[in-house]
Amino acid sequence: MTIDVAVFGAGRIGKIHAANLAKQPGVRLKYVVDVNKEAAAALAALHGAQVADVEGALGDASIGATVVCSSTDTHADLILKSAAQKKHVFCEKPVDLTLERARACADAVAKAGVVCMIGFQRRFDPTFAALKARVEAGEIGDPEMLVITSRDPGAPPVEYIKHSGGIFKDMLIHDFDIFRWMLDDEADTLHATGSCLTDPAIGQAGDVDSTAVTIRTKRGRLCQINTTRRAAYGYDQRFELLGSQGMLQAGNVRPTEVTAYSKTAVSNDVPEAFFLERYRAAYALEIAHFFDAVQEGKPVRTTVADGLKALELAEAATRSWREGTIIKLGAA
Amino acid sequence: MTIDVAVFGAGRIGKIHAANLAKQPGVRLKYVVDVNKEAAAALAALHGAQVADVEGALGDASIGATVVCSSTDTHADLILKSAAQKKHVFCEKPVDLTLERARACADAVAKAGVVCMIGFQRRFDPTFAALKARVEAGEIGDPEMLVITSRDPGAPPVEYIKHSGGIFKDMLIHDFDIFRWMLDDEADTLHATGSCLTDPAIGQAGDVDSTAVTIRTKRGRLCQINTTRRAAYGYDQRFELLGSQGMLQAGNVRPTEVTAYSKTAVSNDVPEAFFLERYRAAYALEIAHFFDAVQEGKPVRTTVADGLKALELAEAATRSWREGTIIKLGAA
Amino acid sequence: MTIDVAVFGAGRIGKIHAANLAKQPGVRLKYVVDVNKEAAAALAALHGAQVADVEGALGDASIGATVVCSSTDTHADLILKSAAQKKHVFCEKPVDLTLERARACADAVAKAGVVCMIGFQRRFDPTFAALKARVEAGEIGDPEMLVITSRDPGAPPVEYIKHSGGIFKDMLIHDFDIFRWMLDDEADTLHATGSCLTDPAIGQAGDVDSTAVTIRTKRGRLCQINTTRRAAYGYDQRFELLGSQGMLQAGNVRPTEVTAYSKTAVSNDVPEAFFLERYRAAYALEIAHFFDAVQEGKPVRTTVADGLKALELAEAATRSWREGTIIKLGAA
Amino acid sequence: MTIDVAVFGAGRIGKIHAANLAKQPGVRLKYVVDVNKEAAAALAALHGAQVADVEGALGDASIGATVVCSSTDTHADLILKSAAQKKHVFCEKPVDLTLERARACADAVAKAGVVCMIGFQRRFDPTFAALKARVEAGEIGDPEMLVITSRDPGAPPVEYIKHSGGIFKDMLIHDFDIFRWMLDDEADTLHATGSCLTDPAIGQAGDVDSTAVTIRTKRGRLCQINTTRRAAYGYDQRFELLGSQGMLQAGNVRPTEVTAYSKTAVSNDVPEAFFLERYRAAYALEIAHFFDAVQEGKPVRTTVADGLKALELAEAATRSWREGTIIKLGAA
Repeated sequence: MTIDVAVFGAGRIGKIHAANLAKQPGVRLKYVVDVNKEAAAALAALHGAQVADVEGALGDASIGATVVCSSTDTHADLILKSAAQKKHVFCEKPVDLTLERARACADAVAKAGVVCMIGFQRRFDPTFAALKARVEAGEIGDPEMLVITSRDPGAPPVEYIKHSGGIFKDMLIHDFDIFRWMLDDEADTLHATGSCLTDPAIGQAGDVDSTAVTIRTKRGRLCQINTTRRAAYGYDQRFELLGSQGMLQAGNVRPTEVTAYSKTAVSNDVPEAFFLERYRAAYALEIAHFFDAVQEGKPVRTTVADGLKALELAEAATRSWREGTIIKLGAA
Repeated sequence: MTIDVAVFGAGRIGKIHAANLAKQPGVRLKYVVDVNKEAAAALAALHGAQVADVEGALGDASIGATVVCSSTDTHADLILKSAAQKKHVFCEKPVDLTLERARACADAVAKAGVVCMIGFQRRFDPTFAALKARVEAGEIGDPEMLVITSRDPGAPPVEYIKHSGGIFKDMLIHDFDIFRWMLDDEADTLHATGSCLTDPAIGQAGDVDSTAVTIRTKRGRLCQINTTRRAAYGYDQRFELLGSQGMLQAGNVRPTEVTAYSKTAVSNDVPEAFFLERYRAAYALEIAHFFDAVQEGKPVRTTVADGLKALELAEAATRSWREGTIIKLGAA
Repeated sequence: MTIDVAVFGAGRIGKIHAANLAKQPGVRLKYVVDVNKEAAAALAALHGAQVADVEGALGDASIGATVVCSSTDTHADLILKSAAQKKHVFCEKPVDLTLERARACADAVAKAGVVCMIGFQRRFDPTFAALKARVEAGEIGDPEMLVITSRDPGAPPVEYIKHSGGIFKDMLIHDFDIFRWMLDDEADTLHATGSCLTDPAIGQAGDVDSTAVTIRTKRGRLCQINTTRRAAYGYDQRFELLGSQGMLQAGNVRPTEVTAYSKTAVSNDVPEAFFLERYRAAYALEIAHFFDAVQEGKPVRTTVADGLKALELAEAATRSWREGTIIKLGAA
Repeated sequence: MTIDVAVFGAGRIGKIHAANLAKQPGVRLKYVVDVNKEAAAALAALHGAQVADVEGALGDASIGATVVCSSTDTHADLILKSAAQKKHVFCEKPVDLTLERARACADAVAKAGVVCMIGFQRRFDPTFAALKARVEAGEIGDPEMLVITSRDPGAPPVEYIKHSGGIFKDMLIHDFDIFRWMLDDEADTLHATGSCLTDPAIGQAGDVDSTAVTIRTKRGRLCQINTTRRAAYGYDQRFELLGSQGMLQAGNVRPTEVTAYSKTAVSNDVPEAFFLERYRAAYALEIAHFFDAVQEGKPVRTTVADGLKALELAEAATRSWREGTIIKLGAA
């Protein structure tokens, strides 16, 4: 049985998801929806799909699933509408910028009995997933400390930042998800601090560009996250997990394995440029995972509940930073 | 304009080329030909193509190009027949096990005016290609010494080895091509020696499994190649090029970037398992390159002349090893 | 002119300092003082020195300098007495477990006009010192974030821990010094948390074995320190400094550069076993630095003021952890 | 019992050996001998020794051992004279530039019953020695192939080269020793070729600066050695040994473990600058080994027989290169 799919959003990430789902056996891209009609038409043409509007796409009974990669402020609405029409839905992170609406989404998909997967693609990165599997196999015993380094090569436009919900919801939400996934544990207390070090305009927009977060979990494990919106040398996505029996590190991925010896240095490539390159394989694997889950009735790895939990941590971090306090998280 | 293609050979490498050409814009897989009808039918079905025999496929005027990945003994014949029908042809290495027939192929494609590309996929490996580009950009000055490490994880069945033309034609032909490509120079003298160290059956089949080749080029540069059919730790594909201004190394590619710290070691993944994994990207890029060349009338990176040159070196190496002599190569 | 020296403490670190100062031109080990007379005698014999008691050693007018490596509770007393006798003094960290007595030491050495150097040997580690020099040369622009990983291979006996002043004064004092040195900045706020994860006896002794500290500096820079008393894989001493123009990492040092390829992994040595091995060069360089400073009247790199500042941070961290608060540090 | 020692040669390597033996318990530097009287006096003064001439030093019955680090043409003579006086002798490589005189030395020390150790210091390098120990422990099974990379950062003066015996005796003699030591096997056939690529003056002096040597051992193992007198990026001393169960690599040693991330590269230090830095530990360990052997009557790791064997290979390589032939080595 073929699943017909509507993609909402024909931007950068929409194009990637469209190309990936087009390769999935038994999946067909039927509609592309975007307020930018030209972008929608171009993406639709590339995959032999049609342009539609939200109502048209969701009103078509043949549509089995939606893929939401439109702007953040439309996520919750499209999840609710998809659920209402009994469509399975894959939605980019975050579910919403407010916990209230995100919870409404969680309730709606539960009630509708549809699959709702949130796009925490990092969980599908081959390096991260291999590390997780090795932790689960007991290689390092019981986890004790997690250190996450998460640095972007450059900040988005300040206009974007103003409506992004701030660095904790916009950037660290991925790291909060990695934290929960890797430790299989929940936050008990959280401390966040930050600075505006790379561009004063970010500070004027009410945000920071450099952050340091510490989480102590319910089981007493420790996690530190360091983040910047602008690392001079590029995109840096690493973490390391210390356990009672050893330690595992997830390193960056390089475009090539060339090593150069000059008079002054022995050097390698800088890491993959940004998330589209670094997580190319992860994007393909998460879409495959979503449609496998839908087709075979299996649970998804990143649920709307995970989206909610990450958002709670982002809210706590924002509050900790703004108020200069240590936040006690609610019961798990 | 769409190019219709016939693929000869539905085995391991035929499947890869078929999948890659199917993704190429303006290229359509029309026929799959294989003496194993079931394999042909399965591959054809996967890509919406038809099963045909050699004559049927080549007799169809709509076919613009052939992709030859059948057994080595059929290569020359299929090149000649493709050329006779004015089809462009992509052919797996080697052109043939004899120089005479390989030269006949070179003549035929030249006369027919068709593109004939030989599948030296390593030239399309992102690491190798980046290294070559940096050499051409002058990063290490004038090349002086090249060291190639080329080790397979395990030998093919002895029955295959018996008809493979021997390790120099079967395995090192790739390394001879890399040598010519990286140094942009031709061999002046060649010395080869070898041993049967991993499996006596290989020696009984008249071959060796471990070889050491040294080439001195017309410009006096030096190249050493070390090869084994069975490296205990897996597939090992590295080389390093010393130049007057520095050195560049091409390293192995790892499945993941996980590093593990245990009580006794800090360890990483072993390299990608074998050529299908290691050169996955290279296979895709070489097929794209072939069809780009055909569609846009551009020269190909690995011509039938390259195939001939590599074969000459393989013959010289075989003779050097058998006779215990240093071989003087003909004028360039 | 030769400087005669008295060493207080003939234990593990006393032996190292004695051996290093014996190699220093113009420096002679005259006395070894230890409550353990046998240890004192053995060390004295090794270097042709004599055993003395504190009064004897300090009462000898020919003694120009003392090296204090006795137990922590004797440090302040020996600094005060050395200063009173106008002896220059090299003292192992920490100056004292209380800020009050440490300040008294600072006052005394200032008044006496003697050199007092504190044994923060990490500042003399070739890797750390090279990194610092590159930062000062402007290689990474303005520092933004510092991440320190500082893990011991195993905890000292619980009896020792009980009198150690706790993990922040005993272990992290080195990291607080590195923080100040690398950022050339002072703490504005500090948050520390910790857990007892490796041995319940440590918790019963009122301490933790795993800590996570975050410091925000007066200039808004961020620093995170993660520490454990027991890393399963050994001694781990790394840090990385992100700046506006790049990033520098200080890695671990390995006993050998052997790389092993097996069927399952490519592996290297674990880092040097513990501080005596890891900082072997640093210990030699710091003693040479001290005597150079004394002989040539130059300032020392790690003053008693540095010892005070590190102790202040250790006290703040202890308080932050105990009280669950964020500590605001005093004016710089 | 203290051994009094005479050092012949107060140059670069003489200074190193003198300093190392001065640290050896029970060993005293009594005489320094050098045709350059000032150099002899300076080195003697540094260690509280006296200047002597050859006869004076060897005529002193209290002298138990000599350390020969004078120019190559004096080695054999000083070994013979030392043996005649029943002195144990440590001699820098090579024993001599001619096999005949080297054999005379071997005979003389055997007859005299003195220890004669040749300065193949690489066997004492911690990385190389650790690798050897792991091979002997069976970690990689039976050795199959050895690849040695041995590159100097720059050539000595052409005047030196003219009297050096050529690159094979001057430089590769170390590599030939490593080959024999690592494989625990002897050469059956040898092929050498070379070029003058870095400085025409070297060619005019009748030598080459770049070489490629292949050895097939009596047991059929393969070894390739690549060498240059001038690697643009510095001193490069690596080898790798493939065995039936795995592979071990010996890598270069770096001055520091700093890693730098810039916009264009992730880079590390170039290797230690030259042999004095790279083999600092090895020089100390070989001198300790020699005096341990002398004091405890144990065999030395690098005998005059090893010196002879390496010289035989160097002669064979020179002949192979000059005559363009493959050399068959004599029975082991």
